Amino acid sequence: MSRDLVALVLAAGQGTRFRSRTAKLLHPLLGRPMIRHMTDTLSALKPVKLLVVVGHQREEIMRRVADPAAGFVVQREQHGSGHAVMSAAPILRRRPKADILVVNGDLPLVTAAMLRRLLLRHRRRRAALTFLTAELRNPYGFGRVIREGGTWRIVEEKDATAAQRLVRESNIGAYVFRTSDLLAVLPRLSNKNKKKEYYLTDTIAELACMGRRVEPCKVEGPEAEGIIGVNTRFELARAAEVFRLRKIKDLAEAGVTFLDPARVWIEWDVRIGRDTTVYPGVTLEGETRIGSDCVLHPGVHLRNAIVGNGAAVLSHSVLSDCRLEDGVRVGPFAHLRMKSVLRAGSRAGNFVEMKNTDFGRDAKAMHLTYLGDAAVGEGANIGAGTITCNYDGVRKNPTRIGAGAFIGSGTELVAPVKVGKGAYVGAGSVITKDVSPGALSVSRARQFEKPGWAARRKARRKASLRPSRKKRKTGR
Amino acid sequence: MSRDLVALVLAAGQGTRFRSRTAKLLHPLLGRPMIRHMTDTLSALKPVKLLVVVGHQREEIMRRVADPAAGFVVQREQHGSGHAVMSAAPILRRRPKADILVVNGDLPLVTAAMLRRLLLRHRRRRAALTFLTAELRNPYGFGRVIREGGTWRIVEEKDATAAQRLVRESNIGAYVFRTSDLLAVLPRLSNKNKKKEYYLTDTIAELACMGRRVEPCKVEGPEAEGIIGVNTRFELARAAEVFRLRKIKDLAEAGVTFLDPARVWIEWDVRIGRDTTVYPGVTLEGETRIGSDCVLHPGVHLRNAIVGNGAAVLSHSVLSDCRLEDGVRVGPFAHLRMKSVLRAGSRAGNFVEMKNTDFGRDAKAMHLTYLGDAAVGEGANIGAGTITCNYDGVRKNPTRIGAGAFIGSGTELVAPVKVGKGAYVGAGSVITKDVSPGALSVSRARQFEKPGWAARRKARRKASLRPSRKKRKTGR
Amino acid sequence: MSRDLVALVLAAGQGTRFRSRTAKLLHPLLGRPMIRHMTDTLSALKPVKLLVVVGHQREEIMRRVADPAAGFVVQREQHGSGHAVMSAAPILRRRPKADILVVNGDLPLVTAAMLRRLLLRHRRRRAALTFLTAELRNPYGFGRVIREGGTWRIVEEKDATAAQRLVRESNIGAYVFRTSDLLAVLPRLSNKNKKKEYYLTDTIAELACMGRRVEPCKVEGPEAEGIIGVNTRFELARAAEVFRLRKIKDLAEAGVTFLDPARVWIEWDVRIGRDTTVYPGVTLEGETRIGSDCVLHPGVHLRNAIVGNGAAVLSHSVLSDCRLEDGVRVGPFAHLRMKSVLRAGSRAGNFVEMKNTDFGRDAKAMHLTYLGDAAVGEGANIGAGTITCNYDGVRKNPTRIGAGAFIGSGTELVAPVKVGKGAYVGAGSVITKDVSPGALSVSRARQFEKPGWAARRKARRKASLRPSRKKRKTGR
Repeated sequence: MSRDLVALVLAAGQGTRFRSRTAKLLHPLLGRPMIRHMTDTLSALKPVKLLVVVGHQREEIMRRVADPAAGFVVQREQHGSGHAVMSAAPILRRRPKADILVVNGDLPLVTAAMLRRLLLRHRRRRAALTFLTAELRNPYGFGRVIREGGTWRIVEEKDATAAQRLVRESNIGAYVFRTSDLLAVLPRLSNKNKKKEYYLTDTIAELACMGRRVEPCKVEGPEAEGIIGVNTRFELARAAEVFRLRKIKDLAEAGVTFLDPARVWIEWDVRIGRDTTVYPGVTLEGETRIGSDCVLHPGVHLRNAIVGNGAAVLSHSVLSDCRLEDGVRVGPFAHLRMKSVLRAGSRAGNFVEMKNTDFGRDAKAMHLTYLGDAAVGEGANIGAGTITCNYDGVRKNPTRIGAGAFIGSGTELVAPVKVGKGAYVGAGSVITKDVSPGALSVSRARQFEKPGWAARRKARRKASLRPSRKKRKTGR
Repeated sequence: MSRDLVALVLAAGQGTRFRSRTAKLLHPLLGRPMIRHMTDTLSALKPVKLLVVVGHQREEIMRRVADPAAGFVVQREQHGSGHAVMSAAPILRRRPKADILVVNGDLPLVTAAMLRRLLLRHRRRRAALTFLTAELRNPYGFGRVIREGGTWRIVEEKDATAAQRLVRESNIGAYVFRTSDLLAVLPRLSNKNKKKEYYLTDTIAELACMGRRVEPCKVEGPEAEGIIGVNTRFELARAAEVFRLRKIKDLAEAGVTFLDPARVWIEWDVRIGRDTTVYPGVTLEGETRIGSDCVLHPGVHLRNAIVGNGAAVLSHSVLSDCRLEDGVRVGPFAHLRMKSVLRAGSRAGNFVEMKNTDFGRDAKAMHLTYLGDAAVGEGANIGAGTITCNYDGVRKNPTRIGAGAFIGSGTELVAPVKVGKGAYVGAGSVITKDVSPGALSVSRARQFEKPGWAARRKARRKASLRPSRKKRKTGR
Repeated sequence: MSRDLVALVLAAGQGTRFRSRTAKLLHPLLGRPMIRHMTDTLSALKPVKLLVVVGHQREEIMRRVADPAAGFVVQREQHGSGHAVMSAAPILRRRPKADILVVNGDLPLVTAAMLRRLLLRHRRRRAALTFLTAELRNPYGFGRVIREGGTWRIVEEKDATAAQRLVRESNIGAYVFRTSDLLAVLPRLSNKNKKKEYYLTDTIAELACMGRRVEPCKVEGPEAEGIIGVNTRFELARAAEVFRLRKIKDLAEAGVTFLDPARVWIEWDVRIGRDTTVYPGVTLEGETRIGSDCVLHPGVHLRNAIVGNGAAVLSHSVLSDCRLEDGVRVGPFAHLRMKSVLRAGSRAGNFVEMKNTDFGRDAKAMHLTYLGDAAVGEGANIGAGTITCNYDGVRKNPTRIGAGAFIGSGTELVAPVKVGKGAYVGAGSVITKDVSPGALSVSRARQFEKPGWAARRKARRKASLRPSRKKRKTGR
């Protein structure tokens, strides 16, 4: 491409129709704020300069833009898209020979490929302005593209006549200008309209009046279906759906089985390996990475979880900020979190929680267990109902369980405490002192029996109930 | 509106295609029986009289109609919609100057707005009969509206020719009559047809024959898409989907984020505050109320739950008939039920159940715990694996835990019992007697160790296994 | 039908676009491998011979074909569909008077009814070849049916011109040949094309050249929508959706309520009784059978589970290879597995796991319990936090609990062990010896108290913290 490109994102608005304390472009779309999707798309075009016009909640917007080379223009008051571009005029003047790509910030579904085609057409046709349009099934909310007297005009939804509303070719909100033409036309914009705003769309008719070449560049076919302006949270959800199904389709074609693609929630940065099966009702968030040949059962919820190859995450397990090595099997109803690592071949069963725990190779904790701040050695067996008492009311203390140890069911391990390699702990013990390797440790009261107790108790109860019934009757 | 309105709902049928012991109109649609949706819609029109024609399971139908001013007409045998209206004739005769709105009971998606337009048109045009029609994409099951010789006729699906089936304008099943004209035409209806029933639809042709003004009033556009006659459970599910998405869209536009609107089950009476985020896979039933700035994770199931502002309900938590104050955080896998109240800032973690429990401000119960019939003071810490033994085989007994108390892990509290303010209970204790404020209470056996036990056991086991292996071999 | 029918399924390919180690036709569709759906459909036509052409992973393919009368033809190298049929020619020659139905293996949505119509038309018209076509909304991936000079030709997607791609009538991949004509045309097929393959579709043009009668038989209307060629996992998911909704609609019309049909995963062999309600988010796999008047809450996951009448399976319960008798109520968060039987009227509550357990009539285990290898008598009450210690590190041992027994909360039952009928076990006990019928058995340490301990501890902690803070400061 012969000329330099400056990219400009309009991101100053609050987005009142979101009815949120949070500015619209900070709302996440598959785990990333919308503004981030926009700047990522524009960065892919390798502009010499990426500018973001900010206003509402600008500090937060500026923090969430990923591109460290991005620059920011502050638009203190918001008087329309034309006004936003005026705020950037001083910077644009320094690049008189560049092309300026201006994109509304709420178009996360516009792809770099679409913008490349827009740019290419603009340059080939040596236009003053080329703007992106699409033939939409439901153009509600978009300005319509009206051809009048050999040129083009955009009519905003709210200013459109009934006939104009039937037009389906819509202005999407992405424009390429020759800088010199943009700078020439900006002062001619007026705010004499219902909303008293400067519309960037008016540049189309104005430049045409000035005799400059102005042309639409239309997106067609299934690609156009994907274009949604995100003005409400409901539209945000629809945009997320399009994004999500694109991503799932790509993964499916790379060898992942989704039993029901519509029923998986998957964020943008998640990766999944070949021949892994994902059931319906799975939620995958953050930087989650799943290996190959895994299975993720219904209701599984992973956030920043790393899962190795050949692992099984059974129904309803919840994993966050943890790692499962190859061949690990967890759940159903496992809850693994905060820096826990499950070594190869280990297993965590139902109603088992691990927090900040290093769980050894081939170790098992199959039922009703809480391991917090623990290190468990290879092949250890943690009985049902085992609890690490890691919190003494003030601080968290560590528990160490040696390789091959056997912790009997219903044991409390009062941390800090160590159980040696190959040691046994008897069921129902409270372990407050370290256990030597290979030893058996038990804390248990003697079992005693009161024969015939049930019958005597029944008799007592009958006796005690009789008078109380009388009393109740008397009381009425 | 100049004339009085009498509204009549036809609700006598069993709905055989539902193949249910329960009458069709008693089946719930987003948590309310269909008959209730119908009578609510009609009550909104403020008729001078709301009449329901009942037959099958009439006591139950009558109980579920919310409007206390509604009257009922019993149709003992069901011989068609015309016959149903005949059953109401004696009452209608008392209102000769009213308009009569007759609506089939299985049209929950017909809105008050549609009926108001029907009524308005009827009155403006001074018609004898105005009937609601819609241009349906899939008119299957509806009678078709046929124009013949300057007037209209309805042909039922089962009596229609192939050509008539192609007609998409369909009779929905809502009619406004001038009372006098309705009473005049009813005796002219005949049951000479395949099903030997009196069709109310025949009034259209008959009134036209009598030279009266009869006109359709058509619903068009996206509104028409929503009209579904509910004859099977599959159609009921489709109607529920339309209803549900309407409700979710309204909530989204009022400031609630639904990550995937299609994947939330929400009943009619549920309310949600602004800036609350609802993940896919959430189920909200009954009189559930959610505050603002909350998050509801995947798999959360609430029924009659009240949730304050800024609360987090983490994955797969199940809450019923309970209340969470502001800033409470529960789950994943919390199960809170039956009159439990969690005070502001308190937390219930994974595999934690509460029943009829008052859980104090900033108190915590994070793991594997059952609190039943308990009162827990402010800031108390309930260790992992704590169980209130509230049931002695005969009655439920209360447990009281004072503010700031610390219950060690793996404790059984044998109710009735009290733990005083600021008291400590050692891990693994069985508490059968009250604990004084500020005291430490423990019931624990001494921990003892048998060194080298594991090696000896292994040796014993080897010795005992050798002969048994021989035996097995011999046995073959 | 006057002539014999031989059915031939083409099942030799790997299905490279699946990007899987497993051959395409082995991938499951609602719990059954695709090849099984195909052979079931063809078996329904009662052919005199059912032949499957196998190649990739043929042992596994052969094992998964259900029809014991099926024969197999090995195609060692795969050079196209025409080549596959050539491999079967020797067998076909033995049936010169039969009709040969050839069907691609990846058409699970083609029904027996469609194939019967194809066959009927073929025979009525005395054609040499009749092939199934459909007017598809999205014909991508299918060969297009082109009429040229009074005859027909199929153009494969990859060889089609842009104009040909616009044709929507597509060749599905199911053909009936007169055997003699098929044998005559096979030697005329050529592999002079982009992929160097013998296309079976070329028989259409060749037979026409030879002056034989060749005709399409078109599937139209909504049936055609269901036809999807399964070339990728994404298409497999779409096929599963069509299948699944067909099955759910059938069940709904037979009297099952699905609140949201799109959100239930149900495999092919699952059965459900009348007036049962299925919430969204339910997963039903394998040979699961649900009785009538049941309710399945959100998140329920059943695999090979038998559920009697009037049972309730509450939220997120996971059941596999187990049986619930009439009126049983389990969950939320119950996990029942491996040969467990819950007798009539019994209840398993939250965070309760049973494995290989026979749980008696009206028995209850409501909270935080693990029963493994246990037999529990009628009406027994298993307290919260009860654990059977069935594993001693070497083998699994049984636990027997008598009818009417009461197991106090927090009890460990160290197996092998028996608790007699009507016996009581005190809360927090470790039971290592059998308990006599009607007796009370307890193993519990005395509860003792240290008054004022909390205050003293606080003082000690303050004292000990002061110097350590100093140290930290010094250390910097």
